Amino acid sequence: MAPKKKEVLYILDLIGTFAFAISGTLAAANKRLDIFGALMMAAVTGVGGGTLRDLILGAHPVAWASDYNYLIVISAATAFTFAFRKTVSKLRKTLFLFDTVGIGVFTVMGLEKALNYGILPGVAVVMGTFTAVMGGAIRDTLCNEIPLIFRKEIYATACFVGGILYLILNHFEINNVLNTCLTVFTIICIRLFSIKYHLQLPVLPEEA
Amino acid sequence: MAPKKKEVLYILDLIGTFAFAISGTLAAANKRLDIFGALMMAAVTGVGGGTLRDLILGAHPVAWASDYNYLIVISAATAFTFAFRKTVSKLRKTLFLFDTVGIGVFTVMGLEKALNYGILPGVAVVMGTFTAVMGGAIRDTLCNEIPLIFRKEIYATACFVGGILYLILNHFEINNVLNTCLTVFTIICIRLFSIKYHLQLPVLPEEA
Amino acid sequence: MAPKKKEVLYILDLIGTFAFAISGTLAAANKRLDIFGALMMAAVTGVGGGTLRDLILGAHPVAWASDYNYLIVISAATAFTFAFRKTVSKLRKTLFLFDTVGIGVFTVMGLEKALNYGILPGVAVVMGTFTAVMGGAIRDTLCNEIPLIFRKEIYATACFVGGILYLILNHFEINNVLNTCLTVFTIICIRLFSIKYHLQLPVLPEEA
Repeated sequence: MAPKKKEVLYILDLIGTFAFAISGTLAAANKRLDIFGALMMAAVTGVGGGTLRDLILGAHPVAWASDYNYLIVISAATAFTFAFRKTVSKLRKTLFLFDTVGIGVFTVMGLEKALNYGILPGVAVVMGTFTAVMGGAIRDTLCNEIPLIFRKEIYATACFVGGILYLILNHFEINNVLNTCLTVFTIICIRLFSIKYHLQLPVLPEEA
Repeated sequence: MAPKKKEVLYILDLIGTFAFAISGTLAAANKRLDIFGALMMAAVTGVGGGTLRDLILGAHPVAWASDYNYLIVISAATAFTFAFRKTVSKLRKTLFLFDTVGIGVFTVMGLEKALNYGILPGVAVVMGTFTAVMGGAIRDTLCNEIPLIFRKEIYATACFVGGILYLILNHFEINNVLNTCLTVFTIICIRLFSIKYHLQLPVLPEEA
Repeated sequence: MAPKKKEVLYILDLIGTFAFAISGTLAAANKRLDIFGALMMAAVTGVGGGTLRDLILGAHPVAWASDYNYLIVISAATAFTFAFRKTVSKLRKTLFLFDTVGIGVFTVMGLEKALNYGILPGVAVVMGTFTAVMGGAIRDTLCNEIPLIFRKEIYATACFVGGILYLILNHFEINNVLNTCLTVFTIICIRLFSIKYHLQLPVLPEEA
């Protein structure tokens, strides 16, 4: 992997973690959790998906256990949300953008890590998607709600489609940096497009 | 392990996974999840128990990450349920039978895998039971309900009793294939018997 | 580690597990779970935190899979609660004391185990806290409630502060046995003090 790509992905990864951690803190606030609960929610939302991926891959130690920056970014997100509550509410659009870039980056990083561990390509796409979406799913479960991503919005689907694209481009030996950019860009576009046009996945009819 | 036994167990394992995945898809439909949520529910129900077992044992990669058949069976179960909703409702008895065979097979496979990893026999029985029941427990937790198997029905108990029987027969060096058949058969019988006679485990009285 | 310290910690660990398992059994009773559900709740409350820690550390096999005493203590706690329901209600203060000693011991054991696995010190404190509090958090999530420790009471905070103290004393090369005693004692004091004076952590205001 080109060193520059690695650095850029790392910074985007931390930005995505920041956006995820803020969404965890806000969920905690809505449920009247205390500051410790808010920190926990920020942490599981921020690094929960990657942790689950690493557990399934058997990748030890998990990313945030060998690099303080993750815990620092998470704590900063919670502190920032507590200190500038109103500003955070106004930053909704910026945070949404961070979050969207985040899922794109998380997907590629998770997918590449899984491939490095010798996982089947089709399963690696699932791992990439997990990295992006499971943090939010654990957050919702802890908050006693059915995970939002299971109920509506094109979210995991964007990651999954992006992952498939990555595999196809990889198969045709497209330059890895270009492939990464195209994949992240595609995920972001699908997500923005589906939000703009209120696209949703079909729902199975209830039992008669 | 006799190669034939291995093949038969593998096929029964996939059939059990199929039945579990359908139950996950139906739970998703009842909660108005979209098709991605349904797939996730199908997956955690189908392979969640085995995944949890593999994580605790430190068995990497987990079964479904090195064999596409699991993801194929899970996707097929969700697609089948979406396409033939009414048929699935009519297949209730067949699915119940698949599910019952499934927990028997899952128990023996989980138990044997744990023993292969040098786990204490008594703990291996717990691992076998986990393999059979935790997928459903995770499904219910994600669906925001207290796991059914914690509340009623002789389900985990059947697996546990079967696991103990396996250890006893193993201790007396009964032929492994015979032991497996007897264990699976016992689990199926206990399950069918308890459903037929509405047997339930006792409940602790509420706090006075 | 002095052999005596190891033995004392081990016995305190089992006592803490016993207290945690009883709290899991009582939670199960309040939710009208059957005896299997009660056992499961006792188990996840008693060893769930340590199991999660071991999974994240990649420590295999997890503690309770290589030592029957944990499963025995958990089963004994459930049996005891079923048999002597009224006595257990009267033992509230004793159990609270066991629980409080338990979180102190769990924190130090988790922290030291993480350090032994070469984890960053600041992350090891998080691991120690996880060991102490995540069992209860999983119990509450399975019971379909938002984890109590995320909502109120100085509980995880006591563990965290104790963990920081341990690192500081360790840095100054204080005798390990003395350090352990001081850390456990500090955690117990913070916990008792905060209960006595109804101290709580601040809560983030709801979204305007």
